Amino acid sequence: MRIDGRPYRTLFVADDRWTVQVIDQTRLPFEFALRELQAAEQAADAIRDMVVRGAPLIGITAAYGVALGMRSDATDAGLLRVVELLGATRPTAVNLRWALAHMDSVLRDEPLDGRVARAYVEAARMADEDAAACESIGRHGLALLQRLSAVRGGKTVNVLTHCNAGWLACVDWGTALAPVYAAHDAGIPVHVYVDETRPRNQGAALTAFELGAHGIPYTVLVDNAGGHLMQRGQVDVCIVGSDRTTGSGDVANKIGTYLKALAAKDNGVPFYVALPSSTVDWTMHDGLREIPIEERSPREITHVRGRSDDGALREVEIAAPGSAAANPAFDVTPSRLVTGLITERGVCDASREGLQSLFPEHAQ
Amino acid sequence: MRIDGRPYRTLFVADDRWTVQVIDQTRLPFEFALRELQAAEQAADAIRDMVVRGAPLIGITAAYGVALGMRSDATDAGLLRVVELLGATRPTAVNLRWALAHMDSVLRDEPLDGRVARAYVEAARMADEDAAACESIGRHGLALLQRLSAVRGGKTVNVLTHCNAGWLACVDWGTALAPVYAAHDAGIPVHVYVDETRPRNQGAALTAFELGAHGIPYTVLVDNAGGHLMQRGQVDVCIVGSDRTTGSGDVANKIGTYLKALAAKDNGVPFYVALPSSTVDWTMHDGLREIPIEERSPREITHVRGRSDDGALREVEIAAPGSAAANPAFDVTPSRLVTGLITERGVCDASREGLQSLFPEHAQ
Repeated sequence: MRIDGRPYRTLFVADDRWTVQVIDQTRLPFEFALRELQAAEQAADAIRDMVVRGAPLIGITAAYGVALGMRSDATDAGLLRVVELLGATRPTAVNLRWALAHMDSVLRDEPLDGRVARAYVEAARMADEDAAACESIGRHGLALLQRLSAVRGGKTVNVLTHCNAGWLACVDWGTALAPVYAAHDAGIPVHVYVDETRPRNQGAALTAFELGAHGIPYTVLVDNAGGHLMQRGQVDVCIVGSDRTTGSGDVANKIGTYLKALAAKDNGVPFYVALPSSTVDWTMHDGLREIPIEERSPREITHVRGRSDDGALREVEIAAPGSAAANPAFDVTPSRLVTGLITERGVCDASREGLQSLFPEHAQ
Repeated sequence: MRIDGRPYRTLFVADDRWTVQVIDQTRLPFEFALRELQAAEQAADAIRDMVVRGAPLIGITAAYGVALGMRSDATDAGLLRVVELLGATRPTAVNLRWALAHMDSVLRDEPLDGRVARAYVEAARMADEDAAACESIGRHGLALLQRLSAVRGGKTVNVLTHCNAGWLACVDWGTALAPVYAAHDAGIPVHVYVDETRPRNQGAALTAFELGAHGIPYTVLVDNAGGHLMQRGQVDVCIVGSDRTTGSGDVANKIGTYLKALAAKDNGVPFYVALPSSTVDWTMHDGLREIPIEERSPREITHVRGRSDDGALREVEIAAPGSAAANPAFDVTPSRLVTGLITERGVCDASREGLQSLFPEHAQ
C-alpha cells in the first residue's frame, strides 16, 4: 500500500539483500520510521515489543527471524535455538507457530551451507503468499460489500472494525480492511467506524492512519460505543481479523471483539471475520477452552502513550495510583456469533463444514 | 465517605453558610481538591465541565445552583433564567430536570424575600434524601451480595462495574457501589472489576480511587475485557448505575453499559442496575427511542489526560492526526437484559410492573 504516494510493504529486505526492514508500528501514527533487523534476537524483540504486530505479519517476521538466525549459526542446534527464541515471543497468534514449524521442516532437510539462502527464499515466498492471500480476501469481501451497497441503493456502506487488521497487520492489503480497500478502489462509497481498541489503541493509531493515508473516510470511536451505533442502525456490517481461528470456526481476536459480535447479533448486523487460512488452527475444536490467551503488562492499562503538545511522545498515568490491572490481550468469539469467514478461497460458514468446504485438504 | 480518615460528602455548604463546596472530580485521582461555587453560573460550569458528575450529584448541584442564583436575583424572571441556565448543561440525566422542576415549583409559591433561605433548605433536604436513598440501596444490594456469597461458600464475590456510580457520583454512599461498601463493611469478601470507562476514564480514575480509599480490593480493566472475564466465570454479578431509567425499565447509563449487559446475558451472569427513584423517568416507555443521548466533544476521544512522569497533568493525542471521532456519552440497555433494579425501596424487576410494585404512587 502507499504512504505519501510511495508503495510499501510492512516488511521487506533492504538493498544489501539480507537486512530486514520493518515499519516501526510503535511510532505510528505520529512518526513514520523503519527499523532494521539484523539478528534473530532483534526480530524476537520486534515481535514481543509490538514493533510489528498482527497475526500474519508476526508469522512473516518470525520466518525472516529464522533466516537472520541462520546467518550466525546454521547448525541444527542453531535452528532449534532460533525457533524456540522466536516461538516464545507471543502465545496467541497461530501464524507464528505455523511459520516457525514450516521453516524448521524445510531447513532441516537442507545442507548447512544452503540454509541461509533457502531461509530467505522461503520467507520471501511466505510473504508473497500472505500478500496474495490478503488480495484474494479483498476480492471475496468486495463481493459482500457490493451486495450491501446494492441493498442500500448505492448509499455509503458503514463498516465497523476492531483493532487493526489492515495492511499494517499483514505484509500488504490487510485482512479485515482488504475488502474495504477493494470496495473503495472499485468506487463503492464506504465509511469505516474504527474502534480505538484499548489498551494499545491500535484502531485509533494504526487503522485510522492507514485508512487516512488511503483516503478512506473513517470515524474513531471508543470501544464502548459500537453497540450504541448498531442499536441506531448506523453500522451495516462488522469486519474484524483473527489471531487464531479454530477448525470449528471459533475466533480469537483482539480483546473486545466478542462484545461487538454480541451487539451485532442482537441488532441483526452481519459480523464477518477475514483471515488467511494460515490463521486457522485445524487441530482445535473449542476456542474458549483451547486457545491460550496472552496476558500482557498491567502498565498498558494504567498508562497511555501519545503525543504531547510539545510534540514529544509521552506516557501519562490514567488510573488511580497503586491500582491493580488485568490485561488479557485477546478474547474468543464463539462461531455461533460469526456470520461468515472471509478467506483467500472465498466466504464460508464459521463451522468445520464451512471451512472444510473451502479447504478440503484439512478434512479429517 | 472517608478520605484519609476524614468524612466527606461530594458537595456541602461551607462554614460561611452559603458558599457551595464540591470535590473537583476532574483532578482526581491525582489531586484531591475542593472547588467553591458562589454563583449559578459556576454551578452550571461545574456540571458542564464534569467537575461534578453522576446523575444524583448533578441534580443536587443544580438545586444548589438555583439557591446561588436566588442570592443575586430572586424574582420570577431570575428563577426562570437560572432554571434554564442549569437545565441546558447536560441532556441525558433526568435528575437534573427533576431537581430543577422541584426547585422551581417550590420557589414560585414562596415570597421573594424568603426564596434564598427556602432554596438552601430544599437543596439540603434533597441532598439528605439522596444520601439516605443511596444508603437504602446499599442495604438492599447487600442482601443480594450476601446470597451470592453464600452460594459461593463464602469465597470472594466478584462484582463488575462500569464507569463511576459510587459515592463520587452521588452525595454519599453511591448507587452501584453502595451494596459493595455495605458488603465489605459487613465482612463479606468482595472484589470489584472496574471498567476503565473510556473516554473519560471515570472507572480507572474515580471508581478505583474511591474503592482504594475505602480499602476494597479491585482490578482495573479496559472496557474491552469484561466479556472475556464473564466467559471464564470470573464475574459473579454486574452492578451499574443509571443516568435515566424509563418507567418500563430501560436503562440509559454510560456508553458501553449495553455491551456488558449483553455479555452478562450470554454468560448467565446477573446484571443489576442500582438507582434512586429520582433517576426514573416515569413518562417514558421506550428508552431506545425516547431518551436523548448526549454527544460530547471528539477531543475526549482523540486525546487522553493523565499524569506525566514529571507529575504534571497533561493531555496526549492518541488518534491519527486529523481523525474524525464520534462521542455518544450514554447508551440504552433494554430492560430484557436487566436482571433487576436495586432501588431505595428494594429490588424489583426491570419492568413497569416491577417498578410500580415498589412505587405504586407512579401507577397510571
